[in-house]
Amino acid sequence: MYLDNSSTTRVCETAAAKVMELMTENYGNPSSLHALGFRAEQALTQARRSVAAALGAKEEEVFFTSGGTESNNLAIFGAAYARKRMGMHIVTTQIEHPSVANAVRQLEKEGWEVTWLQPDREGHIAPEAVLEAVRPDTTLVSMMAVNNEVGTILPIEAAARAIALKKAPALLHVDAVQAFGKLDTKPERKKIDLMSISAHKIHGPKGVGALYVRKGIRIQPHSFGGGQERGIRPGTEALPAIGGFGAAVEALPVVGESLKHAQELAAACREKLRALPGVALNSPEDALPYIVNFSAGAVRAETMLHFLAARGVYVSSGSACSKGKQSPVLEAMQLPKERIQSALRVSFSRFNTLEDVDALIEGVREGMASLAVKK
Amino acid sequence: MYLDNSSTTRVCETAAAKVMELMTENYGNPSSLHALGFRAEQALTQARRSVAAALGAKEEEVFFTSGGTESNNLAIFGAAYARKRMGMHIVTTQIEHPSVANAVRQLEKEGWEVTWLQPDREGHIAPEAVLEAVRPDTTLVSMMAVNNEVGTILPIEAAARAIALKKAPALLHVDAVQAFGKLDTKPERKKIDLMSISAHKIHGPKGVGALYVRKGIRIQPHSFGGGQERGIRPGTEALPAIGGFGAAVEALPVVGESLKHAQELAAACREKLRALPGVALNSPEDALPYIVNFSAGAVRAETMLHFLAARGVYVSSGSACSKGKQSPVLEAMQLPKERIQSALRVSFSRFNTLEDVDALIEGVREGMASLAVKK
Repeated sequence: MYLDNSSTTRVCETAAAKVMELMTENYGNPSSLHALGFRAEQALTQARRSVAAALGAKEEEVFFTSGGTESNNLAIFGAAYARKRMGMHIVTTQIEHPSVANAVRQLEKEGWEVTWLQPDREGHIAPEAVLEAVRPDTTLVSMMAVNNEVGTILPIEAAARAIALKKAPALLHVDAVQAFGKLDTKPERKKIDLMSISAHKIHGPKGVGALYVRKGIRIQPHSFGGGQERGIRPGTEALPAIGGFGAAVEALPVVGESLKHAQELAAACREKLRALPGVALNSPEDALPYIVNFSAGAVRAETMLHFLAARGVYVSSGSACSKGKQSPVLEAMQLPKERIQSALRVSFSRFNTLEDVDALIEGVREGMASLAVKK
Repeated sequence: MYLDNSSTTRVCETAAAKVMELMTENYGNPSSLHALGFRAEQALTQARRSVAAALGAKEEEVFFTSGGTESNNLAIFGAAYARKRMGMHIVTTQIEHPSVANAVRQLEKEGWEVTWLQPDREGHIAPEAVLEAVRPDTTLVSMMAVNNEVGTILPIEAAARAIALKKAPALLHVDAVQAFGKLDTKPERKKIDLMSISAHKIHGPKGVGALYVRKGIRIQPHSFGGGQERGIRPGTEALPAIGGFGAAVEALPVVGESLKHAQELAAACREKLRALPGVALNSPEDALPYIVNFSAGAVRAETMLHFLAARGVYVSSGSACSKGKQSPVLEAMQLPKERIQSALRVSFSRFNTLEDVDALIEGVREGMASLAVKK
């Protein structure tokens, strides 16, 4: 019962097979001029085409990276440095992933001014707050599409509108790692300039992601080397992983279909959690149904997590990326300390079933009974 | 007949199997607190242990990256920024890989002063030149262990001595991508502070490498995010690739054994090339025998490369990373233009045989005859 799909996912069969092929048969370097190199380049193009199609983007707008963290860093430093002369103000939120928050903090140290938008108690960012925050010297707005801990959907459209209304020279960067494949993530339609996605959240391999860079937008590279990825991201292309990413994208069901499945799982999960005395839901009603965050009474998250794991039910406390630390997202939501300390995140993929939900609920029920006794 | 192993290699069987296992069975996130996360963390530790052992290093001195380019960028920017207050002078060579050369050029733009050591006509860097170049304000010496185009071995020991003699606050960074697994690359013994290695040159997967950072040395991270790799290199660990890297390292024969094999191949290759009228060797006698660079008369490299490829013999013109561009290494060696334009690189791995060499020689012989006629 793997209910930790927002941490990482199992690589799907077609993606794993593609990785294998690109390691042992079609193992050339895309930059090599012989047939093996050419075939590798074709595989690279195929993967780029698949990712671009999923984004409703042009192939030349897709740059492969080593994952979501690198995509976020490349976007944030790349945009900030390229537009430094136009202004040094950044707008972001208090509930971003550490790879956005810490990159922005680094820019703060380097002299940028940052407006950190605060969420409400449900994890929502108010559209009006975005509009208010953007200024004529704002050169970057970085906002995730879906929060990784509670699943709230952020007001990306409001950010685009704010930039237009204030006539700000800002690029709009969206960390869509948790949204890609789960929600409509067509950047052009939403006036997004830069968008980060990752393979291992959608049943592709770890170690690969992409940054969408809207045509005509110039960002500064974050690393330097050979001319790969048109100089924006040098280094021999990680073809096995990139090919696996492409195959995982090709295997994605249509967004509406899997969303419906997730809604069913989430609805059952929420209903049954609400029926357990002492359980509080931390994800609001309108959160993306792939994530359900809840607090199990006074039982500490790690304790409950290990109790569930012993029964074969895998969930997470906060996000995997903030291992051992108290959730900065729930803190920003100003939840009571006890509720933060007992918060668990359940995250679904298209392979989960209602039986997984039942096993979770049964585990939480028993955990709350037996662990509360011990207290 | 794949003779382009310095561009990339076929992933060996045990490495490919490990990648597969970490994609489909043991697919957890090492930061997750449940059993799948714990097993993933064990796999990560195992890989780190294997790489550390091969380097004669401690586990905590090994930081996984997305490959050689990222390792080089992390080392160079990380060292330069961390030591900025102690001095802003860098010593490097004119024959570095683009991921070193272009990172250093970026620092030059940011205000660092750089001494670019020139090679002789055989691609050697003179130890005395290194000694002369290092100054009391030198904070970084970056020198590759083995040149990627002609195979010359660079005077790393002289660099370490120069730093000590001049009492410079310099860190010694070595790009050992072409040397790792092929020469003794124990950084501690050679007083190396930072060393870059890559998996896909030693029959591991593309998209993963490591940076050795000597214990006690502090460098500035180049990207920001979760606390993975102790904050030096954040992002969900690319476990399939990292595990494959570890397995590829474990599968490496002892250095002396494979070196002997390469020496036999190189000796046969050189002897037979010398017997072909009009062929000139660009790799000196004392180059690492894994690389043999030569010029085939007046036949342009691309033309010969395609002629050989049509016969199933795969070599490269220059390095894969400078696709389409004239080799900056051979230019720095001040070879005549015609010789640069006709230069080919043959690069061996432990899986090559004398038959591969014979096929190459036969191809070059016929190519020179038939392509010279067409001219």
